[in-house]
Amino acid sequence: MPFSYLSHLECSECGKAFSPSLPQTICPDCQAPLFARYDLPSLAAQVPREKMDNIHSMWCWHVVLPVLTQEHVVTLGEGGTPLLKLERLASKYNLKALYLKDEGLNPTASFKARGLSAAVSKARELGIRQLMIPTAGNAGGALAAYASRAGMSAWIAMPEDTPKANVEETAITGARISLVPGVISDAAKFLQSHAEKGKWFDVSTFKEPYRLEGKKTMGYEIARDLGWEFPEVILYPTGGGTGLVGIWKAYEELLELGWLKNPRPPRLYAVQSEGCAPVVKAFKNGESDVAFWENASTHASGLRVPRPFAGKAILRTLRNSKGGAISVEEDSIRKAQKDIAQLEGIFTAPEGAATLAGLEILLAEGEIQPDERILLLNTGSGLKYLDTLQA
Amino acid sequence: MPFSYLSHLECSECGKAFSPSLPQTICPDCQAPLFARYDLPSLAAQVPREKMDNIHSMWCWHVVLPVLTQEHVVTLGEGGTPLLKLERLASKYNLKALYLKDEGLNPTASFKARGLSAAVSKARELGIRQLMIPTAGNAGGALAAYASRAGMSAWIAMPEDTPKANVEETAITGARISLVPGVISDAAKFLQSHAEKGKWFDVSTFKEPYRLEGKKTMGYEIARDLGWEFPEVILYPTGGGTGLVGIWKAYEELLELGWLKNPRPPRLYAVQSEGCAPVVKAFKNGESDVAFWENASTHASGLRVPRPFAGKAILRTLRNSKGGAISVEEDSIRKAQKDIAQLEGIFTAPEGAATLAGLEILLAEGEIQPDERILLLNTGSGLKYLDTLQA
Repeated sequence: MPFSYLSHLECSECGKAFSPSLPQTICPDCQAPLFARYDLPSLAAQVPREKMDNIHSMWCWHVVLPVLTQEHVVTLGEGGTPLLKLERLASKYNLKALYLKDEGLNPTASFKARGLSAAVSKARELGIRQLMIPTAGNAGGALAAYASRAGMSAWIAMPEDTPKANVEETAITGARISLVPGVISDAAKFLQSHAEKGKWFDVSTFKEPYRLEGKKTMGYEIARDLGWEFPEVILYPTGGGTGLVGIWKAYEELLELGWLKNPRPPRLYAVQSEGCAPVVKAFKNGESDVAFWENASTHASGLRVPRPFAGKAILRTLRNSKGGAISVEEDSIRKAQKDIAQLEGIFTAPEGAATLAGLEILLAEGEIQPDERILLLNTGSGLKYLDTLQA
Repeated sequence: MPFSYLSHLECSECGKAFSPSLPQTICPDCQAPLFARYDLPSLAAQVPREKMDNIHSMWCWHVVLPVLTQEHVVTLGEGGTPLLKLERLASKYNLKALYLKDEGLNPTASFKARGLSAAVSKARELGIRQLMIPTAGNAGGALAAYASRAGMSAWIAMPEDTPKANVEETAITGARISLVPGVISDAAKFLQSHAEKGKWFDVSTFKEPYRLEGKKTMGYEIARDLGWEFPEVILYPTGGGTGLVGIWKAYEELLELGWLKNPRPPRLYAVQSEGCAPVVKAFKNGESDVAFWENASTHASGLRVPRPFAGKAILRTLRNSKGGAISVEEDSIRKAQKDIAQLEGIFTAPEGAATLAGLEILLAEGEIQPDERILLLNTGSGLKYLDTLQA
């Protein structure tokens, strides 16, 4: 069997095909993200799903990842994170089955490791040597780590008030850092105006096709670890939205592969902070794209993304899955973070804690039922946010 | 097959047997640690080693762990950490094969999760409800997490200059914290004089038998992940020494089980800071026990243990394995931490970085050969030490 069944790249809006043998960014016509497509019929015929039982790293899914040969894989042991049953928290809310997938147990202590492991590996395969990224924090730390591991150069631009952990984890790798006033969109503008044209390859969220591929492995793992089916409900903290779109992509691929014991899709809910809720606003207003959120502010730094580049894909995902979007108060995030730590011993990132705050509202509204299986996606470790713990 | 093949506890000095059905501390005659013993002949006859291939958590090793029924296991997904090949660092030193086991990818971001998962689980099985611990930092954070997960109470005493991450990760669980002037031995004295007799069970390193059992799973994983053999050399940062003694215990058990493809033992090297090197001093002087190190001081807080309780067992382990002990300068720890981050993208704890500093010396002395397979044990994530990054 081939190491990867990658066939081509496809515009997520117009469907036009692009070659994965060349460095690609976005669709030049639609200015929209490209999605990787695989020869799933051949894969389904040739590989049994039981081959996917090695859970040491996300690269056990190499057949549905975009790197063509093992030698280009740049790994630090990302993925294979635990799916924990939260029995004490479930009791508190009278829930039948509550789970948390703990992405804090990744290299660089966040889910960003998956996306950057995939993107840096594919960049190496394509001969790219210099990578740049604007980041709310965790993606920058992850890029710095994987670039170092691969012997590549990285240039990371982040808001000047990014948590100290993100700055330090990036600095120690020797990567180039620019601290920029404002938010992630200002960091992106900074790189666009300062980086020499064509010299630094941009691995911004959804502006290259492969971070999404790394992120989708969360969806593959959720299904496998629950006996090849999805829970009824997944709550996902949404900044750039790659994980949300990635989990849905995993669902669609698994459905096509015939690997799901139960084809019922999960309902996906995007959770944002009231201080930066552009996806929630667009969803509730029935819009087809996300508009820029002015004066974005939240201590959950990963949610401080005023306008995700893949707004259309995010909104489609929420609607196709029959899920929704909810914004939560800053204080409720802090309270949820404490509740999870006190009842379950997990020190979540504020972004991850926001999902519990969102769940509380959605249960009260009757949008989620207590007898449904519910999964909270914790995107990182609370250890990366020590300077934001107190208001 | 039984969930566990635990048979009894045994004094590590006089060999006297104790019941594992009762809460146990140390041998009352020798004041020495008790080691768990298993019915390895029955296990070897009844269970193939291939059953151990589930690498999601250390509880895949349940047959050689002390908890008798699954329902008492308190888990946050600890263990199953990656064994990474360090090719760029190996090139720098002209080494044939250099590995790092990254324990930073555990819950609470350190190897302490393994020991406390085992100890808290067994305590729950024995009906204990209140646990206390003196700690240099990481063990306290781990106890707080597992006690919360189990719905038990925890009292943690730590030096007042313990890294902020350890204080915060403990505080958020709602555990009781006492910040004590001095070092870990002062924290121990504080608990002994302040805790009501018999009310709080002491889970200090080696003063109860089960943290060692959790730690030994590192040794099982190293052997399995290298095809059921050990590397020639393992460098281990040594504070309390549980991991070091645990890896050797794993070697001896695997040898008896007949699961090793190659019975050659690893040489174990204890690495300490020059600011607190009681094990190195005792080893070099040919002592049989470790004496108290006055004015212990090092930024690698986990190494700031002036007199490990299991000094005799540590020294025996180093000698039986034909290994050794080495102390390193504070600045060389900082330099090694940067080198690992810049060449391999891993942000190690200073304790883990100390192993590279030690390797450099041992290579120069000819004690370790460049064509040997060498493993560095990184005990935690550098993210937990941000306030100690700069001298």
